[in-house]
Amino acid sequence: MSVKVGIVGVTGYSGENLIRILAKHGKTKIACAMSRSIEEPTPVGKRFPALSGQLELDILPLDEEALARACDVVFLALPHTESMERAATLIEKGKRVVDLAADFRLKDPSLFQKWYGKAHAARDLLRDAAYGLTELNASEIRKARLIANPGCYATSVILAVAPLIRAGYLAEGEFIADAKSGITGAGRALNADFHFPEMDGNAWPYRVNRHAHQPEMEQCLSGLGNGPVRVIFTPQVIPVSRGILTTVYARLVSAWDTARLLQEYKEFYAQSVFVRVREEGYWPHLKDVERTNFCDISLSVDETGKRVIIVSAIDNLIKGASGQAVQNLNCMFGWEESEGLL
Amino acid sequence: MSVKVGIVGVTGYSGENLIRILAKHGKTKIACAMSRSIEEPTPVGKRFPALSGQLELDILPLDEEALARACDVVFLALPHTESMERAATLIEKGKRVVDLAADFRLKDPSLFQKWYGKAHAARDLLRDAAYGLTELNASEIRKARLIANPGCYATSVILAVAPLIRAGYLAEGEFIADAKSGITGAGRALNADFHFPEMDGNAWPYRVNRHAHQPEMEQCLSGLGNGPVRVIFTPQVIPVSRGILTTVYARLVSAWDTARLLQEYKEFYAQSVFVRVREEGYWPHLKDVERTNFCDISLSVDETGKRVIIVSAIDNLIKGASGQAVQNLNCMFGWEESEGLL
Amino acid sequence: MSVKVGIVGVTGYSGENLIRILAKHGKTKIACAMSRSIEEPTPVGKRFPALSGQLELDILPLDEEALARACDVVFLALPHTESMERAATLIEKGKRVVDLAADFRLKDPSLFQKWYGKAHAARDLLRDAAYGLTELNASEIRKARLIANPGCYATSVILAVAPLIRAGYLAEGEFIADAKSGITGAGRALNADFHFPEMDGNAWPYRVNRHAHQPEMEQCLSGLGNGPVRVIFTPQVIPVSRGILTTVYARLVSAWDTARLLQEYKEFYAQSVFVRVREEGYWPHLKDVERTNFCDISLSVDETGKRVIIVSAIDNLIKGASGQAVQNLNCMFGWEESEGLL
Amino acid sequence: MSVKVGIVGVTGYSGENLIRILAKHGKTKIACAMSRSIEEPTPVGKRFPALSGQLELDILPLDEEALARACDVVFLALPHTESMERAATLIEKGKRVVDLAADFRLKDPSLFQKWYGKAHAARDLLRDAAYGLTELNASEIRKARLIANPGCYATSVILAVAPLIRAGYLAEGEFIADAKSGITGAGRALNADFHFPEMDGNAWPYRVNRHAHQPEMEQCLSGLGNGPVRVIFTPQVIPVSRGILTTVYARLVSAWDTARLLQEYKEFYAQSVFVRVREEGYWPHLKDVERTNFCDISLSVDETGKRVIIVSAIDNLIKGASGQAVQNLNCMFGWEESEGLL
Repeated sequence: MSVKVGIVGVTGYSGENLIRILAKHGKTKIACAMSRSIEEPTPVGKRFPALSGQLELDILPLDEEALARACDVVFLALPHTESMERAATLIEKGKRVVDLAADFRLKDPSLFQKWYGKAHAARDLLRDAAYGLTELNASEIRKARLIANPGCYATSVILAVAPLIRAGYLAEGEFIADAKSGITGAGRALNADFHFPEMDGNAWPYRVNRHAHQPEMEQCLSGLGNGPVRVIFTPQVIPVSRGILTTVYARLVSAWDTARLLQEYKEFYAQSVFVRVREEGYWPHLKDVERTNFCDISLSVDETGKRVIIVSAIDNLIKGASGQAVQNLNCMFGWEESEGLL
Repeated sequence: MSVKVGIVGVTGYSGENLIRILAKHGKTKIACAMSRSIEEPTPVGKRFPALSGQLELDILPLDEEALARACDVVFLALPHTESMERAATLIEKGKRVVDLAADFRLKDPSLFQKWYGKAHAARDLLRDAAYGLTELNASEIRKARLIANPGCYATSVILAVAPLIRAGYLAEGEFIADAKSGITGAGRALNADFHFPEMDGNAWPYRVNRHAHQPEMEQCLSGLGNGPVRVIFTPQVIPVSRGILTTVYARLVSAWDTARLLQEYKEFYAQSVFVRVREEGYWPHLKDVERTNFCDISLSVDETGKRVIIVSAIDNLIKGASGQAVQNLNCMFGWEESEGLL
Repeated sequence: MSVKVGIVGVTGYSGENLIRILAKHGKTKIACAMSRSIEEPTPVGKRFPALSGQLELDILPLDEEALARACDVVFLALPHTESMERAATLIEKGKRVVDLAADFRLKDPSLFQKWYGKAHAARDLLRDAAYGLTELNASEIRKARLIANPGCYATSVILAVAPLIRAGYLAEGEFIADAKSGITGAGRALNADFHFPEMDGNAWPYRVNRHAHQPEMEQCLSGLGNGPVRVIFTPQVIPVSRGILTTVYARLVSAWDTARLLQEYKEFYAQSVFVRVREEGYWPHLKDVERTNFCDISLSVDETGKRVIIVSAIDNLIKGASGQAVQNLNCMFGWEESEGLL
Repeated sequence: MSVKVGIVGVTGYSGENLIRILAKHGKTKIACAMSRSIEEPTPVGKRFPALSGQLELDILPLDEEALARACDVVFLALPHTESMERAATLIEKGKRVVDLAADFRLKDPSLFQKWYGKAHAARDLLRDAAYGLTELNASEIRKARLIANPGCYATSVILAVAPLIRAGYLAEGEFIADAKSGITGAGRALNADFHFPEMDGNAWPYRVNRHAHQPEMEQCLSGLGNGPVRVIFTPQVIPVSRGILTTVYARLVSAWDTARLLQEYKEFYAQSVFVRVREEGYWPHLKDVERTNFCDISLSVDETGKRVIIVSAIDNLIKGASGQAVQNLNCMFGWEESEGLL
């Protein structure tokens, strides 16, 4: 019997992709697809003409009572700060929740307030929320009622350095992450910067030294190794629709060569169906991961043996959001991690 | 001594390009650059960082009194229906005006109202306004006080068929124009359709059988030949920033071959420095005209000799707007037609 | 038990997409994936890094004996003129063949020679080959040993006008098709025109009045109605990777209005799961059909009632090639037409 | 009287852009435009249809005798290793030479051989060649007979860090440069990676830890400060035609804040018309420098005061190649540095 899932926020990119993925998922049924911006039931094929003829489903105005009645588990794909109270209510009613926003990612509510500009409204739940990076946190996710689905940049950075940090190889407790992102990462909200003629042929950095995914990365990575980790993080937009390509620069506590370090990475991710550690010399390409839940990784140690460059690529909408959310669902229910995702 | 020009609406694409062109024009000085959306004097390099270090100029809030005092000639680069009263006031004060909007393009005020949704506020001026397609209308433009600068689609279509119609070769008084446009043609106003991730990799037609440039084309072309001309016109957007590629399908009253008809076109445009009739077999490319005031044209007659396919390419922001406006200015003042444009 | 399929020419775009589709097909097993350009067995994930971790499959050098031994049905995804002899050999050995090239599309071998520059090497098979436009030809496809999979442009044009022609509404026995294609339509062969910096921001027509898909369209459409049909066809490239947007201009023998004609189209395609006739006013978008086997269609009759503009959109690699090939396979074997394609 | 210039290699991107720039240069005349790949005199508008109607000039087959006779100064825009002998011959004949290839950039011939795979054929000239980064090296350029025009990546990196290094602020003698480049940087040679459908929507790093511009950067920068400088350099391609966006990560010997360091940069570049140090918080955008000779720079010091992120943007074809070559010409002849470039 299928698990009944609800999706809130289906008109955004993450919500739309949740529908696309869950429509082909063998263990679930989309019981509810809701949106705050829809006023009356609307066939999904009307809102997303690409989906017509593929899927019979009505998008409904958000109704939290009806949602709770209809679903066993709910995906919240809402803007940051819009999930926290809703998640609390749903949890109280015995539902399991995967939150795709940032609301439950930071354990420290004062850090949340600093970065997202609002006092946290469900502090009690912060401790319970499992950080949903399945590759690193499966045992916690398996038993969690509430999943904080990671940020897209955070996913691309953390997966790139996790093996290094867990093994204690990172020197000086810090590294640099230079990330290039596609424009869906900024969501569907209109913005003069992302008007086609402005973005086409363009690229630039933004929020240098002050992007909200930085504390999330640091919290997760500091828990992996022997001490606090500091991330120097620069996000940049490039004219592609989807994908994040991240280049990490780190120093190593002792000398390595590329082949041996790649081998360590392969072992670290041996059980992770969605991480592909590439052969030496082949670098991750955005197109290789486009519309997939894969994270591709490769690296090169320089001739001194003490500096490494690690590159990862993900699709920000799949492994960076909706795909990872479904991967977490699969993990929570003890299904194949790849159900609906390959 | 330089002619003092004013530009109103400099924050739109057409206004910005007027600044770029006029800054290098040898006979004029930008005396005034104004915008309705600017609240205090703003260096042009602040609003358009690309222009900093190239041009010392402040953008001023729109002040019609100051504008009239400072300028000999004014370019109005405003949304449709926003020029008509302003143009009337400026003309009254003895200024010459080039209007880049549609306000003076249609001679029939009821047609204007039908297509632009507003009663015309300066009907007396409609007769006086010269339609600013320099290649066809230079003698009128030379003495005009008020120029109605053509629409971008209209320019691409009219130049493609003018030789045919003036020579009386068009059969049945109608032809088809299938146009593909870059996104700047829709202006800077935000629109969910033109959000980068929506437009990238996409293309579609719009306003099929009901685009406002159609009556403008028909009015101009009906005046060229022996009778009324009907245009079946389909505009389409393609994911490029600038440019219009138009493919015309017409029937001919008598049989031709490609080489002879191309020769007729070359003769027709022999004096037109900005129309390049291409050699047989080389078709107009958007990139060939990018950031230029050129209109490239080629054609092919089929094996029956009675059907012709004509293709034109322009940059919608230059030959389709700002470049053509400056070409009209050059014509009005008796300067080299290419001043500032080559 | 699964049907064993072979794919020849897997390193081209069509071959690659056949692998992608058939890997998820419930009734078949890829028994053989071969390429003329591969010298030794190569894991598919090595040649196409995007596919690694998804699919265990070796690409083998082409070996026609081994191919015939291993497979029940073979997809030939080779350049034009490279299939005809190979298909004949396979058919002789009792295999069923779907040819994605043009080799069996034209019934008249002299026409084939005129357009493809080579004498036909398997004339006897021309009569037997079924033209694989499943929507129009299912009964023939069902029993065919050899399928000539349609050209991408031909698919987009024929589906747009088939209801019109079969109903006898087309006037004058001719219509115009203005098509805009993505660059995968030209295949993987390198070409200076399609070097990224040349194609980016560019668009142009080519082979005007002389594209090889024109006789294919005419042959298919002339068989549908009451007499010969002539197509005036202009292909154009636009800077997208995949998709064909076609705009058809036709005259009607009697007056219609848009709503009624759309209704006729809906009825014509009522059983066709992959044709979506859109609601009045919503025009096909390339992105709506991207990576799908759908053909979206809409139309508008002008105010005279005697001229119609019809627009269709397909993904040239799916409905225009590999998806249609699998749809034909499904039809040949009596499976659900959408198996592996939704 | 005009200086007579020759351009060798006009069919590449750099050569084409030299023609575009020099055609509008007030002090020179293009006396010779030659190419190794042209077999007979060819009008420039035939090879580059975009240039027809703008410029009367024939491209000639390369003839070194005729070149030397006709020109005072020669731009060599040839592939690496193709300039060295030709430059030597021209210098011997008393010509001045600007070499856009790498042939004279590295002072150490063994380094040249290591990175470019060929023994240097004009070692005597290596000492004489001035490294043509006008902002740093004007006095040497002014009197040089031979200019080694910098690599595009090298330009973007060196300008970003020069003020830091000359002032002695860089800690540890090393920094990281993460560069994102448009595809014209790879030239016109066809390459499967840059076939439009492969590059569109894609991005990836290449030659990590082994790009030939790295020793060039290190040589130039080691000469600026108090000791050797090591660059950890990662080039990446992104789907734009032109432009390089470089993000530099450096540590500082003592604490700074952003405003003060920006001020130092402004002073350093106060006389450099083509370097625009941006206001705090506004980051360089590729589009701001597109088709210009500008290098835009901004930076941010983190809260510790000891780490700085510096971003630069250039157009690789202009400031990274042809524009810089003309800037060097202007400097050599004592003209305004911006002649032909603004």
